[in-house]
Amino acid sequence: MKFKTIEPIKGKIRILDQRQLPLKIVYKDYDDFRDIIESIKRLEIRGAPAIGIAGAFALALAARAEVKIDPERLKCLLTDVAMEIKSARPTAVNLSWAVDRALKAACLYEGDNLEELRIVIWDEAINILREDEQMCHAIGQKGAKLIKNGDTILTHCNAGALGTGGIGTALAIIYTAHNQGKRIRVYADETRPILQGARLTCWELMQAGIDTVLICDNMVGFLMKQKKIDLVIVGADRIVKNGDFANKIGTYGVAVLAEKHKVPFYTAAPSSSFDNHIASGEDIPIEERSPNEITIWNEIQIAPAGVKVYNPAFDITPAELVTAYITDKGIIPGGRCGGETVPTPPSGEFN
Amino acid sequence: MKFKTIEPIKGKIRILDQRQLPLKIVYKDYDDFRDIIESIKRLEIRGAPAIGIAGAFALALAARAEVKIDPERLKCLLTDVAMEIKSARPTAVNLSWAVDRALKAACLYEGDNLEELRIVIWDEAINILREDEQMCHAIGQKGAKLIKNGDTILTHCNAGALGTGGIGTALAIIYTAHNQGKRIRVYADETRPILQGARLTCWELMQAGIDTVLICDNMVGFLMKQKKIDLVIVGADRIVKNGDFANKIGTYGVAVLAEKHKVPFYTAAPSSSFDNHIASGEDIPIEERSPNEITIWNEIQIAPAGVKVYNPAFDITPAELVTAYITDKGIIPGGRCGGETVPTPPSGEFN
Repeated sequence: MKFKTIEPIKGKIRILDQRQLPLKIVYKDYDDFRDIIESIKRLEIRGAPAIGIAGAFALALAARAEVKIDPERLKCLLTDVAMEIKSARPTAVNLSWAVDRALKAACLYEGDNLEELRIVIWDEAINILREDEQMCHAIGQKGAKLIKNGDTILTHCNAGALGTGGIGTALAIIYTAHNQGKRIRVYADETRPILQGARLTCWELMQAGIDTVLICDNMVGFLMKQKKIDLVIVGADRIVKNGDFANKIGTYGVAVLAEKHKVPFYTAAPSSSFDNHIASGEDIPIEERSPNEITIWNEIQIAPAGVKVYNPAFDITPAELVTAYITDKGIIPGGRCGGETVPTPPSGEFN
Repeated sequence: MKFKTIEPIKGKIRILDQRQLPLKIVYKDYDDFRDIIESIKRLEIRGAPAIGIAGAFALALAARAEVKIDPERLKCLLTDVAMEIKSARPTAVNLSWAVDRALKAACLYEGDNLEELRIVIWDEAINILREDEQMCHAIGQKGAKLIKNGDTILTHCNAGALGTGGIGTALAIIYTAHNQGKRIRVYADETRPILQGARLTCWELMQAGIDTVLICDNMVGFLMKQKKIDLVIVGADRIVKNGDFANKIGTYGVAVLAEKHKVPFYTAAPSSSFDNHIASGEDIPIEERSPNEITIWNEIQIAPAGVKVYNPAFDITPAELVTAYITDKGIIPGGRCGGETVPTPPSGEFN
């Protein structure tokens, strides 16, 4: 990748401001955890794995902010900070997962050296970033086997390098297949209201030299009816015990259309997106965002002033619409494959 | 209605410039048929019945432009002009239907008085406008019987007063039910790329005091899954012999989701939208429009420069996904009703 979505630089966290893509490439350096929380809320950084990494670094920065504090007191304080970070965005499990993991590393530290404790947390955030890179790579390797030369792939939102610490989840598979010399074309849904598909997915795929065609979200059905799509690959913000998963609003509609047209539908996600504590998709918290995301564009009102708006940021796709889950550990058959629909967090190599 | 979509004023044709809604209410007066063709192409006026009316008036203006011409020579000349007007937008049949009807009125004139011939054409355009008003009213009356007190209705694009010479087609039913005192809520798809739902449907429904909620096109599935939609009503640009119909891009996806969730799906259209000369939806010409409609918003690029774009303005919904067609003559059962799926242009009262 010619860019870094998030990386530590000289003790600060450098984040590529995705709100300004594709027009401007602007990096922001943060050293206050509160700024990272705001950055996550503002969607400067988004994508389930990427906000997990950002959250872990936010905790590491919070640990640094306190001077002359007892390590045990700091652990207590970080427990509150962790709650605050995790509430920045509720739907993706990766944020909770990563922040809890960094917090746990802190709690397991039994020494009394403040600087050592800080390093433990920082190192855990680095580990999460590095492991995410490896998980992306592994998803790409596992998933690319499903892509044939000449395939046309539809994707929704951005499950790419911009949403992870590595080369993405859904897009990792596309990059890997492309690098294997397979000739592929990608249709990218623009993904209203924030246009992650138009602004981010098209941008990163075009940088990699991949044949990319932009469509509006409402064109998916007509495309599939014309048999122009061979398979769908999307990411996931949270995959729960029964195989239901949350992903960017619109994913469910694409899954229904894929089933109707017998187009395989794959969900690509790292182990960190699996949440075994929730039984079914109905219990996943769905974030609703500001009406302004829909009614205002480039500071210009595009709908009548005062119109009511419903703006859920995610929807739930039931396991029965999934052909397979592509994870870093292997491929798990989904409900449409008549296979396992209870994708417990993968712990070993099974494909 | 507090506005007029299209009307003749002192020999000119006054058109409400819908590109500027909802921010500005700007009327444009045209007396050159070429300006009306451009107005149709630019989408200042849109909606199948409305562009039919505009097309008929364009022909009437063209007849006035020629001075010192033999009536027979004028008829010949208008045949060419009619071709030009009809090619402005290919998908809706109403434009061809209305222009051919005005042309036929001219051809049937057997006198040799140029001014009389001009009046014949002008009067036929007026007739088309008046009949459209009546058809809208009739659609509202027939369709309102299907709306129950407390219903929540989803609509796509704008099949309202702004798309017709009267109170609309799909929205006529909503206005009529509302005026009958039924408590209803309408979810309006924003309808990318031109946002006719956000800009036009919300605007006219709110003017009428109807409870309106704006959503992005990709939210329909999640809404239906939550059982928030009781029925769908959309318009149609062309309904062909086997019952397939063309309508704004995205209609097909909504129809598939409605079938999946057992939500009734109604298509409202005047007799002038029925085209018995085409056997099946596959043969309807689908207009593709400029990539800029998707990639540029308010003159600001929102996708990477040079990205490929697919921008069909319409899609085809097969008859089997239609619960019923609501026309000015009555209600015709559709494929989902196990009923008649060959809705020949209704000629009498049958419901």
